[in-house]
Amino acid sequence: MEWPNHGGQPAQIQALFPDKQTDVHIDFSANINPLGPPPGTKEVYEQAFEKVVTYPDPNYDKAIEAVAADAGVDASHVCLTNGGAEAIFNVLAMFKGKKATIIQPTFSEYERACQAYQLTYTYSFLDSHAHFSFPLEEVVSQLQEVDVVLVCRPNNPTGTLIPQHQMDTLIQAASKTQTTIVVDEAFIDFLPKEEALTAWLKRHSHLILLRSMTKIFSVPGLRMGYILGSPEIIQSIKSQQIPWTVNAIAAELIPFLLQQHTFIARTRQWLAEERAYLQTKLEALAFDVTPFHPNFFLLRESQAYQEISPSLAHRNEHHLMMDLFESLLSQGILARHTHYFPGIKGRALRFAVSERSNNVALIHALEKWRRHEW
Amino acid sequence: MEWPNHGGQPAQIQALFPDKQTDVHIDFSANINPLGPPPGTKEVYEQAFEKVVTYPDPNYDKAIEAVAADAGVDASHVCLTNGGAEAIFNVLAMFKGKKATIIQPTFSEYERACQAYQLTYTYSFLDSHAHFSFPLEEVVSQLQEVDVVLVCRPNNPTGTLIPQHQMDTLIQAASKTQTTIVVDEAFIDFLPKEEALTAWLKRHSHLILLRSMTKIFSVPGLRMGYILGSPEIIQSIKSQQIPWTVNAIAAELIPFLLQQHTFIARTRQWLAEERAYLQTKLEALAFDVTPFHPNFFLLRESQAYQEISPSLAHRNEHHLMMDLFESLLSQGILARHTHYFPGIKGRALRFAVSERSNNVALIHALEKWRRHEW
Repeated sequence: MEWPNHGGQPAQIQALFPDKQTDVHIDFSANINPLGPPPGTKEVYEQAFEKVVTYPDPNYDKAIEAVAADAGVDASHVCLTNGGAEAIFNVLAMFKGKKATIIQPTFSEYERACQAYQLTYTYSFLDSHAHFSFPLEEVVSQLQEVDVVLVCRPNNPTGTLIPQHQMDTLIQAASKTQTTIVVDEAFIDFLPKEEALTAWLKRHSHLILLRSMTKIFSVPGLRMGYILGSPEIIQSIKSQQIPWTVNAIAAELIPFLLQQHTFIARTRQWLAEERAYLQTKLEALAFDVTPFHPNFFLLRESQAYQEISPSLAHRNEHHLMMDLFESLLSQGILARHTHYFPGIKGRALRFAVSERSNNVALIHALEKWRRHEW
Repeated sequence: MEWPNHGGQPAQIQALFPDKQTDVHIDFSANINPLGPPPGTKEVYEQAFEKVVTYPDPNYDKAIEAVAADAGVDASHVCLTNGGAEAIFNVLAMFKGKKATIIQPTFSEYERACQAYQLTYTYSFLDSHAHFSFPLEEVVSQLQEVDVVLVCRPNNPTGTLIPQHQMDTLIQAASKTQTTIVVDEAFIDFLPKEEALTAWLKRHSHLILLRSMTKIFSVPGLRMGYILGSPEIIQSIKSQQIPWTVNAIAAELIPFLLQQHTFIARTRQWLAEERAYLQTKLEALAFDVTPFHPNFFLLRESQAYQEISPSLAHRNEHHLMMDLFESLLSQGILARHTHYFPGIKGRALRFAVSERSNNVALIHALEKWRRHEW
């Protein structure tokens, strides 16, 4: 048995711990909006059954028009994809055999897509000793040798956000070296609207944005994402895209979901409140939490706590986090392991932000862990 | 405006003929089973809404077990795909930069997939003067220089079926040259079960079968297909597959659909009756119809009729078929054009087999055409 490569797989995790009989009551391992799907989604889903019996429109005109209107761009800037995953693969397919930079720790599918299309790639690392800050100078200095840089913003799994002024410096520098900057904005909808880089597309034809609609609207089972880029880039991607990758139900739901502005506002309000709650509580428990912006964060044992706690001093960070993972699991709480993330390798756990009652349960479980009561 | 590249797009066709105000009442342009979806599909679909809020199982264990049980193979021989289209692309991705043979006229996505992965490819042609028979000797003679041969069986758009003894000769010869034979069985479920080549997989590790579940079960909007091959081939394909390509609703419906044996039997019975009806009627009208096995056929103006009909003698086949296409459209009947199929290029029309009342309407419209009454 191996640890699963993605979150949201409680059954696979439980199979790794056959002697733990506890059911997973609260799954913090998948970064899905707990407020969703938006009211009315089920009704639109049920009406959409009639679309099942015909092929989806291969051009997805209605869905693409809805995306374009929502993003404030022309439809020629939009390629609809089968979730954010197809967006990643289809963009990297344009760079077959070329050179990429991946900023680690980050979403593992960038690396898989590079492998699938024979890109050579190197890692740069967020600074794990400085709140996972972005290594701007290092990345800029390498642009000359690189065809494409993959940036996850906000970053998964850290939840950190490269400031816009750093993005601006990076994109200006990349313009001179003709390097493409791909920004995965899969979780950008959880942040204030002005954080998205949509408006920058007009100025920079070498900028590509990847989006997902499944996180904010809580419909990951339906697979819906898109790519924003110059009409030339979009046309090139579409010319090689597998036909009908987006199912008819997803295509039908997209115009409805993108109109749910009240739901998105409510989500941002909920997230602001829960972030404040969690940050306060976790700080009081002396955990090291990333300065997170979207609906998830990384948690580590703080150096300070390790130094003052004799029982922890001899344990390495990886073992500590595994102990914590098992402690939580035995209380029915599933965290996201980080074994496979370069730059972390198990020395942290990722948690999604959930509803208040679940977040309270998490804090209680962590308090127990602090009191050695598990 | 261009002619659409696939069937099932009545709106795009109507946009090509703005002066024809007729609505499409009967769409013969998409090869979907008119009896489906099977009874109970809607209920399973509605229950499956709860699966929308979580990611699909990335390994699709339950759906793959259902496919394996249905096909009579071990699960290690199965890769689930986002419709038959992803199956085509994922198989050809294994042959990046290599050489392929495509047997024309056939489904256009083989060629697009070859282009997407930089395969070089040549055409061999079915013999349009001999019921689109398979050019066995020619294909066998080229095996030495080719890495992969793409065979559509039964073939789209002709509806013809390469006899099993010819397939056996081809696969034996390909074994000596280490050429992979890919057989697209997207429409095989419409034929008697013994026509499928599933049992041949055990003997031939260089044989790959592609399947679709959307035609027979009338759920093309949901996208569900699969690849059957040796465990080594399947593992290789999965290692490069985009994650979560099959949506959770499709994954949930697959075990239900594959149990609908009565529905499949009823479909085969319906097809046998409608084939007999259409063949008799179309022969009486002196059309040249392909000897078709699945739920579609190609129709051409017969040489004999052109010779005896003074008004047709001066028209070329392409113009004749366009006249017929427009005649049918003005009566609310949509045929599938063949402009882009190498080896046909508009000299035939493709029709799906529909319910009896629709088939009767088609025959009446063709009778009108024969009487020059349109």
